Amino acid sequence: MRSSPNRGFASDNAAGIHPRLLDAILQANEGHALAYGEDPFTARALSAFERTFGEGTKAFLVFNGTAANVLALQCLVRPHEAVLCASHAHIQVDECGAPERFLGSKLIPIATGQDGKLTPELIERQLRGIGDQHRVQPRAISISQTTEVGTVYRPEEIRALSSLARSRGLLLHMDGARLSNAAAALGVALAEASLGCGVDALSFGGTKIGLLAGEAVVLRDGAGEAASELRFQRKQAMQLASKMRFVSAQFEALLSGELWKEIALHANAMAALLAEKARSVPGVRVSRPVEANAVFALLPSRSVEEARREHFFHVVAELPEQGLSEARWMTAFDTRPDEIEAFVARLRELLAAER
Amino acid sequence: MRSSPNRGFASDNAAGIHPRLLDAILQANEGHALAYGEDPFTARALSAFERTFGEGTKAFLVFNGTAANVLALQCLVRPHEAVLCASHAHIQVDECGAPERFLGSKLIPIATGQDGKLTPELIERQLRGIGDQHRVQPRAISISQTTEVGTVYRPEEIRALSSLARSRGLLLHMDGARLSNAAAALGVALAEASLGCGVDALSFGGTKIGLLAGEAVVLRDGAGEAASELRFQRKQAMQLASKMRFVSAQFEALLSGELWKEIALHANAMAALLAEKARSVPGVRVSRPVEANAVFALLPSRSVEEARREHFFHVVAELPEQGLSEARWMTAFDTRPDEIEAFVARLRELLAAER
Amino acid sequence: MRSSPNRGFASDNAAGIHPRLLDAILQANEGHALAYGEDPFTARALSAFERTFGEGTKAFLVFNGTAANVLALQCLVRPHEAVLCASHAHIQVDECGAPERFLGSKLIPIATGQDGKLTPELIERQLRGIGDQHRVQPRAISISQTTEVGTVYRPEEIRALSSLARSRGLLLHMDGARLSNAAAALGVALAEASLGCGVDALSFGGTKIGLLAGEAVVLRDGAGEAASELRFQRKQAMQLASKMRFVSAQFEALLSGELWKEIALHANAMAALLAEKARSVPGVRVSRPVEANAVFALLPSRSVEEARREHFFHVVAELPEQGLSEARWMTAFDTRPDEIEAFVARLRELLAAER
Amino acid sequence: MRSSPNRGFASDNAAGIHPRLLDAILQANEGHALAYGEDPFTARALSAFERTFGEGTKAFLVFNGTAANVLALQCLVRPHEAVLCASHAHIQVDECGAPERFLGSKLIPIATGQDGKLTPELIERQLRGIGDQHRVQPRAISISQTTEVGTVYRPEEIRALSSLARSRGLLLHMDGARLSNAAAALGVALAEASLGCGVDALSFGGTKIGLLAGEAVVLRDGAGEAASELRFQRKQAMQLASKMRFVSAQFEALLSGELWKEIALHANAMAALLAEKARSVPGVRVSRPVEANAVFALLPSRSVEEARREHFFHVVAELPEQGLSEARWMTAFDTRPDEIEAFVARLRELLAAER
Repeated sequence: MRSSPNRGFASDNAAGIHPRLLDAILQANEGHALAYGEDPFTARALSAFERTFGEGTKAFLVFNGTAANVLALQCLVRPHEAVLCASHAHIQVDECGAPERFLGSKLIPIATGQDGKLTPELIERQLRGIGDQHRVQPRAISISQTTEVGTVYRPEEIRALSSLARSRGLLLHMDGARLSNAAAALGVALAEASLGCGVDALSFGGTKIGLLAGEAVVLRDGAGEAASELRFQRKQAMQLASKMRFVSAQFEALLSGELWKEIALHANAMAALLAEKARSVPGVRVSRPVEANAVFALLPSRSVEEARREHFFHVVAELPEQGLSEARWMTAFDTRPDEIEAFVARLRELLAAER
Repeated sequence: MRSSPNRGFASDNAAGIHPRLLDAILQANEGHALAYGEDPFTARALSAFERTFGEGTKAFLVFNGTAANVLALQCLVRPHEAVLCASHAHIQVDECGAPERFLGSKLIPIATGQDGKLTPELIERQLRGIGDQHRVQPRAISISQTTEVGTVYRPEEIRALSSLARSRGLLLHMDGARLSNAAAALGVALAEASLGCGVDALSFGGTKIGLLAGEAVVLRDGAGEAASELRFQRKQAMQLASKMRFVSAQFEALLSGELWKEIALHANAMAALLAEKARSVPGVRVSRPVEANAVFALLPSRSVEEARREHFFHVVAELPEQGLSEARWMTAFDTRPDEIEAFVARLRELLAAER
Repeated sequence: MRSSPNRGFASDNAAGIHPRLLDAILQANEGHALAYGEDPFTARALSAFERTFGEGTKAFLVFNGTAANVLALQCLVRPHEAVLCASHAHIQVDECGAPERFLGSKLIPIATGQDGKLTPELIERQLRGIGDQHRVQPRAISISQTTEVGTVYRPEEIRALSSLARSRGLLLHMDGARLSNAAAALGVALAEASLGCGVDALSFGGTKIGLLAGEAVVLRDGAGEAASELRFQRKQAMQLASKMRFVSAQFEALLSGELWKEIALHANAMAALLAEKARSVPGVRVSRPVEANAVFALLPSRSVEEARREHFFHVVAELPEQGLSEARWMTAFDTRPDEIEAFVARLRELLAAER
Repeated sequence: MRSSPNRGFASDNAAGIHPRLLDAILQANEGHALAYGEDPFTARALSAFERTFGEGTKAFLVFNGTAANVLALQCLVRPHEAVLCASHAHIQVDECGAPERFLGSKLIPIATGQDGKLTPELIERQLRGIGDQHRVQPRAISISQTTEVGTVYRPEEIRALSSLARSRGLLLHMDGARLSNAAAALGVALAEASLGCGVDALSFGGTKIGLLAGEAVVLRDGAGEAASELRFQRKQAMQLASKMRFVSAQFEALLSGELWKEIALHANAMAALLAEKARSVPGVRVSRPVEANAVFALLPSRSVEEARREHFFHVVAELPEQGLSEARWMTAFDTRPDEIEAFVARLRELLAAER
């Protein structure tokens, strides 16, 4: 256990609850409401989702991102069918095998370029053994928006994948744990960065954009049986909240008046600022395109421990031959310019001392 | 969807967040804290759990009761082993098959008496086919405290089951979604109504006693490998909260200063009052012992719809031959005597009109 | 381990390989043949299945009956959907939880009358909680032909169940481990006692009618996606035989020239003879209708051990208050009248001595 | 479906039943024997296994290789634990996701060198994220003996892996579908090429060495709980044969008098001959070390179709830039030198024509 790092860059889920989302919780805490989503807050939230993602789309609220991913994929694959994903995808490396356990399906990891994105070409190469009863059958493509390296799929990139999927009998899943940041970065609506481009099932993130907890599976219009089964699958997956009104109220607040965009634009701007400042520090090299609210940077391994003493962050890779570590700095709704200044000043100091 | 029933008797999870637990959330919403339980709130909550349930016991926080049950059972059974439970147990009838799905195990439902309790005799009759490779092997007994019909296992009843379990190579699980109400009813500490009587794995309920959301799996001292595996199983079961501090802070508040008891005593007293008043209404018959915060009552089916218009409640059984319905009235931390008065007056009025 | 009981009544799978089925194995053992069903024997067997069960039906060969049942059910239910079956059904009590493990689904056991059969009325009573997300959703009815107590569903009984199923959105599975015996008893073709009466998925038994090993899942015409997925599910279920030609060759022999009927008629006749003779023994009471190749009988518990010393059989129930045991005597393709005479004589002797 | 290829090199499981194993079946087909392994043939077979693999080892017979692998791994891993295997391992690419489905576990594929073998160095690199609750925990190493490219692990190579496993808290599985060929190639006993080198759980292949069907899971001495659970898991995995005597009788014959070695030495010798002859054909390049009964060779893609018209074989890889295909030629107990001569002559002719 680590003593509470005030104001670090560990993750956007190290931030707390956004004040306006907390307000929504407080306002929902009046009197009784039927449990398990039979309440007016949930009804309004689901309407807000449908307005946001398009008529006929259907949202299902769950507790966390792993569950949203697993349940979204449950709508797309049967156990003998496989999910194609980036080799560093959250579902592949950070969910302790939840997809395999719950779906019974195999994940097929695909190495990507430095931008962390899947492409039609990368997918095509994996479409082998179709119809061979000894092989799992590729069925879903899963992409992350933003990607795990902080980049953003442009709508045309998603459409290219979706188009390939259609032509090859595949379905497209998007892990949108940070979809808000992606849409804000692209300057488009949430739907335009996701379902609108041919995504079949979306995991839409709430927690990392400021909720206490809460994610949603959103299915495209016309999802049919998958949509009617998902209510039961959600319960069977241990993801049906009894006091759902509190999750719902937050989502209603997030989607109304574009609070999601306001938060995301701020976090993205802070990442841009951090990247800009960090680039000016000798010895620091920003290692990935900075497109949303993540900054990846290489810095001397020796200075890492000291650097994160006051502003905690995660190290995602080690390059021992070069003596470098790759840090990931995430910004959130409450990241402040003065923290960035202080952090970068500290970095500069540490790296100067090291020379 | 049902319009928000102000102040009904639908369920204790139709109540909102208890003010002091909400305070705990507000206070935890300061600055950043590492995600996934690496925060000081969680450390303090886990200490509070250990103080509450005994040295060496280990708590694991999860989102909801279904998950707590499934993960507690995961610590006790392998897929070819069966769980013995009451035929009306929550795990058997209200979790949409989550135990079968996640554990791969069979549940063996056992019909109980009117008090809803399992007994050593009822268990013994099911211990057949031991060692027969064609049969699932009974391995865990699961009891609910309070039971699904609102009764409370006395410590000696739990110890009798635990003693049977020990002698027959079985393990004992308790679904303690309402353990607080049970312990308050018994006038004992939480441990004395659960782990202290030989329970191996406990699902301890937070949501129904006033949390926004949050339950815990608590394993007895010496749980060994099960305890070390549970961290991973929790993640694989999609139950690892990223902003865990908010669940933890509530539990710390619940367990400190005996807030759980204060809340439970109130809810239990309200149920006793409701039962007493209801018994005085001609045409209403309280159908189960009222020991905690649930009142079950038979009333004419014709009056049910009208009766629950203002104070919503659930009907759990229909006796069409007798024209009766069995209602379940639950009380919560915020149930008020004046609501009970109003509800019972309304019942009296309706049933009088009917004669 | 039990020393080889020459000629007992333990089970029809205690018999060996029928000589003409063994011949089929020998004839198939010429040269090489592609593995996994890509061989001419399998092609011919599948044609024989389609001729037997009707145009458009599709057969998939597997190793054993548990697998046939599980895979047939896999075609009918999703994990949140339940299977309704007799409380003594093989899938419920004799498969060590394989359905729960592989399907993730709940089985709902239903107590039947003395004839061991499910009826529309018994099914109707279980159709509760439809659409309630907390409840598993009844989806498949599973019946056994013959039943576990040796009785035979008449075509109109199956059609009544199938008709109920159609009207309530359910599907019908038949565990036909002894379908040959049933059809022979009814004097109808295999299809008329199964798929032809509205069964959606059939487990067709080979082993108990004389194969070395081999069962088939047969899906009704128009099974659509289930049929195209079953090839993969079979492999994933570890049921794809590499030297499939040997299973196929036996099935071809069984289905051609009505060998199945010849075998079944013999076994059924032997059971009828055994029942007739046994009824004449004072102290023995035949306890179930004898309709195919099983005889159930009550006899004094004290004589059981001695009785099965020479002709082994299983005891399926004990009635300690009455000092009785219920024995199950199965006949097979190689049961001989003289064995029956000897066995019944021995019974008579033992029971006389006891008086 | 392919018309029966007389005498090809498709696979060792395209061969039929070895005459002496068929004899064993015929001899076992006398009278009745209790089902499910309660027969004297099985008792003798299990003794033969213990004699072969060492005192205290325990064998469990199953139908096929996929099942043997999945059940052996079931003894070693829990669902949150991962299996490390070669990226071309049978469990990874040829079992349609059976391990993920039945175990709920993730497989971690590792690219190997040209010899297809895992090494301690390759394993070490994957031992990341130990103790991190977001990551599956590496727990079992699975190697194939012979490997999928026909090479053979030498005892010291296995011991090196086993030693690494011991020191890192891992367990070692061997997919010994062709263990007989490997041991014969090494000139050692079966145990010396497997369990004797520190393997914890072995899948021992019968089908590819000449059985009609049958494989075994063999657990090392001291396997404890895993061994006592495996009887139930086998049934739950749909792998308990009712007429087990016929599988057992074949294994008894295979292990007695070293029939396994006789068969393997012949097949290996035929592969050596085929490799030698093929190397002399201009345009053919043997691409992998020929150590057991498989020959991998590169040949012009244009000649493949014609080449396998008379002697069928599989193509395992295509190198379109070079116009080459990699063929896999397997030999079996019944491969004859004259077939090899004929096949190589045909190859020579085809390739000469092509120039």
